[in-house]
Amino acid sequence: MEDILVQVLQRITPSEEERTFVEELTKELRGIAESVIEEAGLSVIPRFVGSLAKDTYLAGDHDVDLFLAFPLETPIEELRREGLKLGEEIGKRLDGYEVAYAEHPYVRARYRGVSVDLVPCYDVRSWRDVRTAVDRSILHTRWVNDNLNGRNNEVRLLKRFLKGIGAYGSEIYVRGFSGYLAEILTIEYGSFVEVLNQAGRILKRRVLDPAGWTEKEPAVAMKTVKREVREDKPLIVIDPVDPRRNVSANLSWEKYGAFYLRSREFLERPAVRFFFPQGKSIGSYLEELRKRGTALVTLLFDVQDIVDDLLLPQLERSARGFEKALGREGFEVLGWNVGRRGRAFIMLELNRAERERIRLKPGPEFFKESGQEFYGKNEKVWIVGKRLYSERTISESVIDVVSELLRKNQVALGKGIRDAVRRADVLLNYVPKELEDEAYLLLSREKWNLKG
Amino acid sequence: MEDILVQVLQRITPSEEERTFVEELTKELRGIAESVIEEAGLSVIPRFVGSLAKDTYLAGDHDVDLFLAFPLETPIEELRREGLKLGEEIGKRLDGYEVAYAEHPYVRARYRGVSVDLVPCYDVRSWRDVRTAVDRSILHTRWVNDNLNGRNNEVRLLKRFLKGIGAYGSEIYVRGFSGYLAEILTIEYGSFVEVLNQAGRILKRRVLDPAGWTEKEPAVAMKTVKREVREDKPLIVIDPVDPRRNVSANLSWEKYGAFYLRSREFLERPAVRFFFPQGKSIGSYLEELRKRGTALVTLLFDVQDIVDDLLLPQLERSARGFEKALGREGFEVLGWNVGRRGRAFIMLELNRAERERIRLKPGPEFFKESGQEFYGKNEKVWIVGKRLYSERTISESVIDVVSELLRKNQVALGKGIRDAVRRADVLLNYVPKELEDEAYLLLSREKWNLKG
Repeated sequence: MEDILVQVLQRITPSEEERTFVEELTKELRGIAESVIEEAGLSVIPRFVGSLAKDTYLAGDHDVDLFLAFPLETPIEELRREGLKLGEEIGKRLDGYEVAYAEHPYVRARYRGVSVDLVPCYDVRSWRDVRTAVDRSILHTRWVNDNLNGRNNEVRLLKRFLKGIGAYGSEIYVRGFSGYLAEILTIEYGSFVEVLNQAGRILKRRVLDPAGWTEKEPAVAMKTVKREVREDKPLIVIDPVDPRRNVSANLSWEKYGAFYLRSREFLERPAVRFFFPQGKSIGSYLEELRKRGTALVTLLFDVQDIVDDLLLPQLERSARGFEKALGREGFEVLGWNVGRRGRAFIMLELNRAERERIRLKPGPEFFKESGQEFYGKNEKVWIVGKRLYSERTISESVIDVVSELLRKNQVALGKGIRDAVRRADVLLNYVPKELEDEAYLLLSREKWNLKG
Repeated sequence: MEDILVQVLQRITPSEEERTFVEELTKELRGIAESVIEEAGLSVIPRFVGSLAKDTYLAGDHDVDLFLAFPLETPIEELRREGLKLGEEIGKRLDGYEVAYAEHPYVRARYRGVSVDLVPCYDVRSWRDVRTAVDRSILHTRWVNDNLNGRNNEVRLLKRFLKGIGAYGSEIYVRGFSGYLAEILTIEYGSFVEVLNQAGRILKRRVLDPAGWTEKEPAVAMKTVKREVREDKPLIVIDPVDPRRNVSANLSWEKYGAFYLRSREFLERPAVRFFFPQGKSIGSYLEELRKRGTALVTLLFDVQDIVDDLLLPQLERSARGFEKALGREGFEVLGWNVGRRGRAFIMLELNRAERERIRLKPGPEFFKESGQEFYGKNEKVWIVGKRLYSERTISESVIDVVSELLRKNQVALGKGIRDAVRRADVLLNYVPKELEDEAYLLLSREKWNLKG
């Protein structure tokens, strides 16, 4: 075990060279920011936050988060306006920038090959001051720095392990562990290995309260716990800097499950591959299709104006819509995969590509005038009860069924992409080059296979 | 038209030779019966009934119905006992006999190559005397002979036409027109062609009352009409000899429909083939299967001890049971056929022979002890919510599904054949030689095709 961790640390701990670079970079950025702030006559304090400021970044992964902390008394509109202006002024002195949008607009710049986010916020001292979603970052950085006590490399190991097993990142389309959560767990349990050791017990305990909020602010803390229990979150970590918040609110059962199972596995048989898995070896999706005897339907459509955070939940909703609608039509959806590769895609694995070829064709009652016509027109006619029947041979492709369902508006689709999906190209048992790996990962289930 | 009818009559009117033979036969049988009755010291009257007695039999089709009419005061047990004994005594003087069972036992004998049924009954004079199901035959014969007025050949044409279109016979597995019904219709409308002309109007009128029971016995007649309307019978013909009975009680909509459609067709373009259709040309059922892309499942089983009248409805019920049960399992039954060729058979045409090959395999929740086992045992494992999943590749044949359904008792089967069906041989896309024609007729739909 010791050996493995040493090997991994060699790869993830920043070198002296990198540290020096980061320190210089930080100093320069602070200088630039301070002079721009002075020129603007603002009383804003530039504060570095995130893994760089906490020294928990992984080697080679040193994007900068520079927050522009406005006095608490600044009106929110002024903060928005002046914050953006300030960010742009700073950005102009760097190597290029663009405006990005979250709860508030901010500036994403580049400097010396590094991405630098310039984010306006309030200079909060406690959770009671928090007014915008980003304000807590300053408190998080401070709390981690006050409590980590040199266990920075333990955090690095945990973060790399979580990345390796695909459970890192709190984005809505990952729903894994955030960096801050990894830091809290390390502080709470003292080391990377101990966090893994506790994977089962953490789940049983369910509630973690590193800052003792349940004693200091019992009412607020209990409200948080109750809310999160009601929503069946796998884990409730009361934010050390804000008793109203569950740090692991976005953590899914799936990602905790992966952490749980792979932790046990790692502790039994430690290996570097848990931290640095070999890329899933991509095979031929056509070969998989043949072996499985299933059918692959892919919808491809343009969604240029939607960011991934919004797009992916909509794609998932739409995939589930197809699953239901096709089920009603006699096609079983065995699995699906969604994403964006330039165009957005929804891939569906189905039990078959065609519906039965013979369809009963009910006619009118034999004594009706139209019965004569039916009798005359059809080659084979018989009666069941009073009604005439014939049959027709149809070979209905799932592609036609999908088009028909979309035309008739019978698929529950994500709202923001409804029109785009209706105009989608629909492919059967074939995907363009750039989707071949996704098709393989879906069909082979390697996309989700924990034992990849 | 005239031409056609003449041609047909030449084939269906008994020749002088046949008539002479029948008359001699009848005389001899009466003589034998009378002497046996005399020897037994019984006051029983032998009465010929059926198409022979009414002179409405088709050439070559001259089976004898000789009823042994007991006085009304005979107790029912005595009639059963003495009737059977009498039949057997008569049978002994003929060319062999066996005892058969309907409501009461009777004797089926052979004499000079002709089948002779010796049936005990009461010598009824009116419907109020009727005590057993067969008693009415004497009244029917009398009524027809009193009313036919020489239109015997018209009846022959109608019977042959009904045979030709597959709508003759009131047996439960035919549900067509009885001979008596053909006679009544001929009497009512005067001629074969006129009956056909009225096919639409008869259906609209719905109720026929040739003997005027609705005036003579309004309460009884109306009760009959109401009952039969409630049961949605296509036609209600109040029996001229018994206002309680609908002569066409067993006539199905399907057979009336065939009569209706083919009558119109015949009147437009008369042809001998309506009376003497060419045997359906039997093609290769394997070729049909290939063309249709469907699957044929055949169940074969022994049912030696059940007569057709009872067996066929049970087979039909069972086929419908399979239709439902297989539908729940994802197989669509497109058509079925049942019958007996030595062994009983149920044939099902299905949209496919196999179910999808991939099955989701849900496991326990990941944090359960058994979750570890599931994780260890399966090659691919992923999590949905808290639950572990894997998948297995199965290629489940409909044969296995049928066996499983029978094993789990999940098919609604005809009661009398339940155990036999459970022990059935189940064949896929293959039938033994003796069933090849039935398989073809099912798959090609020629079995029911009115335009055969």
